[in-house]
Amino acid sequence: MTENKQDSLKKPLSRREMLKLTGVAGLGLLIGGGGAGGLMALGRKGSSVAAVEPAAADKGLPFYGKHQAGIITPAQDFICFAAFDVTAGSVEELRRLFRDWTAASAAMASGQMIGEHNTTLNTPPTDTGEAAGLTPSRTTLTFGVGPSLFDGRFGLKGPKPRGLRDLPAFAGDALDPKWCGGDLCVQVCADDMQVAFHAIRNLARIARGHAVLRWTQEGFQRTGRADPAGGTPRNLLGFKDGTGNPDTMDAVLMDQTVWAQPSDGPGWMAGGSYMAVRRVRMRVEVWDRSTLKDQEATFGRHRDSGAPIGSRGEFDPVDLQARSTDGQPLIPATSHLRLAKGDGSQLILRRSYSYSSGLDAKTGQLDAGLLFISYQRDLDKQFIPIQTRLAKSDKLNEYTVHVGSAVFACFPGCKQGGYIGETLF
Amino acid sequence: MTENKQDSLKKPLSRREMLKLTGVAGLGLLIGGGGAGGLMALGRKGSSVAAVEPAAADKGLPFYGKHQAGIITPAQDFICFAAFDVTAGSVEELRRLFRDWTAASAAMASGQMIGEHNTTLNTPPTDTGEAAGLTPSRTTLTFGVGPSLFDGRFGLKGPKPRGLRDLPAFAGDALDPKWCGGDLCVQVCADDMQVAFHAIRNLARIARGHAVLRWTQEGFQRTGRADPAGGTPRNLLGFKDGTGNPDTMDAVLMDQTVWAQPSDGPGWMAGGSYMAVRRVRMRVEVWDRSTLKDQEATFGRHRDSGAPIGSRGEFDPVDLQARSTDGQPLIPATSHLRLAKGDGSQLILRRSYSYSSGLDAKTGQLDAGLLFISYQRDLDKQFIPIQTRLAKSDKLNEYTVHVGSAVFACFPGCKQGGYIGETLF
Repeated sequence: MTENKQDSLKKPLSRREMLKLTGVAGLGLLIGGGGAGGLMALGRKGSSVAAVEPAAADKGLPFYGKHQAGIITPAQDFICFAAFDVTAGSVEELRRLFRDWTAASAAMASGQMIGEHNTTLNTPPTDTGEAAGLTPSRTTLTFGVGPSLFDGRFGLKGPKPRGLRDLPAFAGDALDPKWCGGDLCVQVCADDMQVAFHAIRNLARIARGHAVLRWTQEGFQRTGRADPAGGTPRNLLGFKDGTGNPDTMDAVLMDQTVWAQPSDGPGWMAGGSYMAVRRVRMRVEVWDRSTLKDQEATFGRHRDSGAPIGSRGEFDPVDLQARSTDGQPLIPATSHLRLAKGDGSQLILRRSYSYSSGLDAKTGQLDAGLLFISYQRDLDKQFIPIQTRLAKSDKLNEYTVHVGSAVFACFPGCKQGGYIGETLF
Repeated sequence: MTENKQDSLKKPLSRREMLKLTGVAGLGLLIGGGGAGGLMALGRKGSSVAAVEPAAADKGLPFYGKHQAGIITPAQDFICFAAFDVTAGSVEELRRLFRDWTAASAAMASGQMIGEHNTTLNTPPTDTGEAAGLTPSRTTLTFGVGPSLFDGRFGLKGPKPRGLRDLPAFAGDALDPKWCGGDLCVQVCADDMQVAFHAIRNLARIARGHAVLRWTQEGFQRTGRADPAGGTPRNLLGFKDGTGNPDTMDAVLMDQTVWAQPSDGPGWMAGGSYMAVRRVRMRVEVWDRSTLKDQEATFGRHRDSGAPIGSRGEFDPVDLQARSTDGQPLIPATSHLRLAKGDGSQLILRRSYSYSSGLDAKTGQLDAGLLFISYQRDLDKQFIPIQTRLAKSDKLNEYTVHVGSAVFACFPGCKQGGYIGETLF
């Protein structure tokens, strides 16, 4: 394909349209080129590439909007999470990076190839190609900035949010710096792992010279295909995770619990949300030796139904006062459910994924667990008090260890023509 | 649920039936128990657990048969691969392990819970539960034994196959022991990552005291959902991988290339296949800086169509004699395609998956690449000569490094009532 041909295209190519064109271009090269008319005529005869369009339902999720996608968006099947350290020397450079990231992200969310000159032979492709031909797969890309970005290196337009600082040391933390912190983060979620990987890899590539990867973590839930009824996903301890989440369809509740409000300050975060991320390793081998009774007492829920102990349905109201015939609380004092719930005044939106990352080098046991992610309006008032209670008393701590930790201020969304981060940079 | 109730069940529970029963059992505990009749009456009123049955199409793939599933089975979306070291002291113990593994594998392949007493409260659950409610997801579990199992520790019924030995050192190998070898292996493939993880984790659990995990690797392809047309998957360098595979529907060809024949010896391997597995890290950052022309010359194929250079369709015949107008071979001498093909006499069945495992600790770059797996009737005549050529001259070596390696003799299949490995143990 010549640049002339490419330049004549007025709109971006979808990952499927590109395939059809370049299938023809390959032949064009063989027969020594030729006019576009000739190429198109050959194209109509068909190519080896199936011309199946993406399923009608899969046009991708909107990238632009008041809020960033990927926060109250129903969780996709996979995550690729990346934290970056900035190497850029100026806020102008950061601004350029976020403009480029925004353009690439909007393209990827709608299943388009990145860049306009994918098929120029004598330059590196602008898109690395491993997602070519794949549907948008509900891809969302969610960007945030960590506390360290406000260390004075950049003359940022907005101030550091009051609550944006490294989390306090919680009891039992066993943090490894290789899974902690970051100046920037991107949470990519998609219903396809290859599509999610493609996004992180291309964002890292675009960042070259301006930011470097600090840590990454892949994760998964059960796929929608394996669970057509769409129940609450189970974590790797076999229990449902996310039952108590606030209703993301309740806009008032989301304003109260997830979205930073203008009155919260700083202004650049209005419509954004604060993310807490924890890499929680599960000692699955130890867990697997515990009895079902102990396991249910640990979570405060029945394993199979997900119901609070003593109740029947997963979404039955949690009655913390209920007692068994011997006078003991049905939902034990040290259970995860009771401690996470507290007096019910602190809500967070959990959006976690399981991970499995081979074997732990030190113990030879499975390095598997939960990439815990929560969004909240205020870390100090929501995540931190909850995690303080859990770290102190949660029976689940016998089976888990927190090895990674970071917080990020995730920007509000932006309109087409704008860019993510424009309120700050 | 009481054991009486459990014992009255004549057939194994599917992962979805179990959910319905235990949703009721939770309530049974609350109201102080009661007869099965009472429980069932409550059950009919419905529970919070959706009673949706798995999609009719997803009854699972057969586990039993002449050959093990997972070899010529069309590749599923995900893999969890595990190599084990045996700690058992006798062949009787190995036999018992494989009997237990076989029963558990047959259950998991058909979407059933492992074991008969899942819901006894005072013992650890026999199934770890994270796949409860999920469909079988085309799960296959494929078992093999490595050369080290024949080191004299066990009085095995059959001899070590002539060709079952560690692969020779290939040019450029940078093997790390942590991704090499193993007395046993299990390749679990499924269309759901959580289902695949569940299988490896439960097999490791069943093996406790008899075998320990040596290394594991998770992998993925694009999902079927993101590629409804089902084209050849792309690797993380953006090129299609597996185009030249032999036709698995051609039974004669499979006997010639994949299945060990009785005349090959030893008898216990007849109907089995030899697996080569290589963890191939891709230097994606370096690759991403190379031009499309270089990339296509490296593979010998057009990136977008997958066609051999100079051809149009992915499956067009590969013409190694074709030359451009300047007399150079269209498919370069050092291209992966030309070297892998050789004179065409050596065929292997590739069944590889991409992997992404965070960042490499040494370089800070993405630890991503290919979990290369191939099946063949004879390693000496098929994989080894191909890999020797590739290791010596493949232009792709500029962008890849082999960091893990193992070979396994994968058993023939078995009938219901028998067990995998019965021909050897």
